[in-house]
Amino acid sequence: MHKVAVVGGGSWGTAFAALVAENIREKTSVFDKQIVLWAKAEVVDGEEIAHGINTGKRNKKYLPGVQLPENIHCTSSLQKAIKDADILIFAVPTKYLGQICADAAQYATNPAVALSLSKGFVPHDKTFCFPSETIKRYFPEAAVSALSGPNIALEIAHRFPAETTLASADDHALGLLSSLIQNSFLSVKPHKNITAVEAYGALKNIVAVGLGAASSTGCPSNTLAVILRKGITEMVLFLDLFCGIKDTSVFLEPCGIGDLFVTLLAGRSMELGRNIAKKKEAGAPEIQAEHTAADLHAFLAAKNKTDRFPFFTAVYNAVSGKTDPESFVSLVATPNPL
Amino acid sequence: MHKVAVVGGGSWGTAFAALVAENIREKTSVFDKQIVLWAKAEVVDGEEIAHGINTGKRNKKYLPGVQLPENIHCTSSLQKAIKDADILIFAVPTKYLGQICADAAQYATNPAVALSLSKGFVPHDKTFCFPSETIKRYFPEAAVSALSGPNIALEIAHRFPAETTLASADDHALGLLSSLIQNSFLSVKPHKNITAVEAYGALKNIVAVGLGAASSTGCPSNTLAVILRKGITEMVLFLDLFCGIKDTSVFLEPCGIGDLFVTLLAGRSMELGRNIAKKKEAGAPEIQAEHTAADLHAFLAAKNKTDRFPFFTAVYNAVSGKTDPESFVSLVATPNPL
Repeated sequence: MHKVAVVGGGSWGTAFAALVAENIREKTSVFDKQIVLWAKAEVVDGEEIAHGINTGKRNKKYLPGVQLPENIHCTSSLQKAIKDADILIFAVPTKYLGQICADAAQYATNPAVALSLSKGFVPHDKTFCFPSETIKRYFPEAAVSALSGPNIALEIAHRFPAETTLASADDHALGLLSSLIQNSFLSVKPHKNITAVEAYGALKNIVAVGLGAASSTGCPSNTLAVILRKGITEMVLFLDLFCGIKDTSVFLEPCGIGDLFVTLLAGRSMELGRNIAKKKEAGAPEIQAEHTAADLHAFLAAKNKTDRFPFFTAVYNAVSGKTDPESFVSLVATPNPL
Repeated sequence: MHKVAVVGGGSWGTAFAALVAENIREKTSVFDKQIVLWAKAEVVDGEEIAHGINTGKRNKKYLPGVQLPENIHCTSSLQKAIKDADILIFAVPTKYLGQICADAAQYATNPAVALSLSKGFVPHDKTFCFPSETIKRYFPEAAVSALSGPNIALEIAHRFPAETTLASADDHALGLLSSLIQNSFLSVKPHKNITAVEAYGALKNIVAVGLGAASSTGCPSNTLAVILRKGITEMVLFLDLFCGIKDTSVFLEPCGIGDLFVTLLAGRSMELGRNIAKKKEAGAPEIQAEHTAADLHAFLAAKNKTDRFPFFTAVYNAVSGKTDPESFVSLVATPNPL
């Protein structure tokens, strides 16, 4: 009997826990009937988030308006959350993932399977690694997988039809997690190459920021298409140079074109790009795309490869306030000599 | 000295003639200094289009607000237009392409190179062929190429940065046409597989109609991403089954993701999809996407393959008024069993 814990009570972690909780109710011969959710200790409207989830089945701050299933138990004790769980699901921002894994490794009792829901880079040893690699470092015995796709949390919580890519080199983990996740409204597409899937998940945010910045300057459609393709071309080049992946077919999967499309349609990265000028004045809260842009730039600079990635570099310069969006557009609109 | 004729005085033909006219002014050792444009006899505001272009350097109906170069000569006589031209560029709707090629073949004096700017299917012998194949049938001696990309005509006319795919199996034609087309604001990417390029150019309109229809029903982002990917998957399947092309890398070229993106952003196909319900009442003028959907459906039905293409079939049913957009969305949102 598999026990499942979801680590991270933000919008995606909560929505995912709700989805899994519903699924396991019908599969009690395989999974323990209750899912445990770890949420950081945080008070909203005078109530601890964990308490609100346990008593009212609501996460008012991160998933407003959604009624959660009865079989979710929430705790702010990481130890209690993951004790005895053999399937660990991490849904925390990449900047906290390393520390949370380090903490979790003290309490976990040899989980068989771990799953990353994070998208982005995890800073490590003056460079970075992908979320699954961080998890693997702390749970070397576990089969580590990653989930990535066009999955706006609130839409999943409202049961709108969606699909996602589940990536792992381990067939058993793919089967077990598919059974845990797939349901009538979420279609799970398995994939063997976890690195490709995680790279697309991180890099598509940079493409979205660039398009947002370009569109904020009134850039016409033909030129936006050039900018989009410059971004995609650099994603492909990144996978080739740094991950040894020449196969571009993963771009056609949910984690590729699907996720990029949703990010352009509804994600915060595109909004960040559109608001770069405004943001510099207003000091809005940071989002994942900014960290990804900065981590990526530091990595490319360390590898002496920024000149091969003029689009990524221009996005970083715009996000970090070194240039304004207009200069970004004029750069990427220049015919690429390569 | 190459003489160039553009056949078709619509927005794209006129904008393309203007672009080429500017280019050849600087390459008078290779190309004749004047380009000839054929426009059908049509009176706008009491003036023949050809007369307006020749006297005022304007095409008021199809390219309003654009000043054309001096070295464009326009005529409504197909014979005069293509006499002596050895580079023929066809920019006419696919439904007229066969007849116009048949007429042109009577007058042409053995053109060395022909280029298609059309996107869609040309009905032929109870099935269809691609525009380049129609041209080849009438000009068997010519090296036939096709141009396809994210190229909104008015934006090209206003010199906004853009890129395009130029496809031909013939290296000499690729070189000659690149020299004719490439300039400071339009980047030309050559490609060897003309069939793949033309197939994407035709099919992306169907994908855009489907997304437009879905978005008109308030379909959420995650589900739109599923619909987009269903459409792309069927494009890939079509190329595999009927063109023998398994390589999906052309999707990453300007004629693939670039053109699809611009069609979603600014093309009339998406608008058609959004207005399917309205259109059934109002009787708006037909556009290329409707012909493409109908031609494609007839072809798939003749091949007994509609069940392999549920998305394309649903789009045809919606466009032809057999179903309303809601039923289309519920069909494509169903998890695909394949």
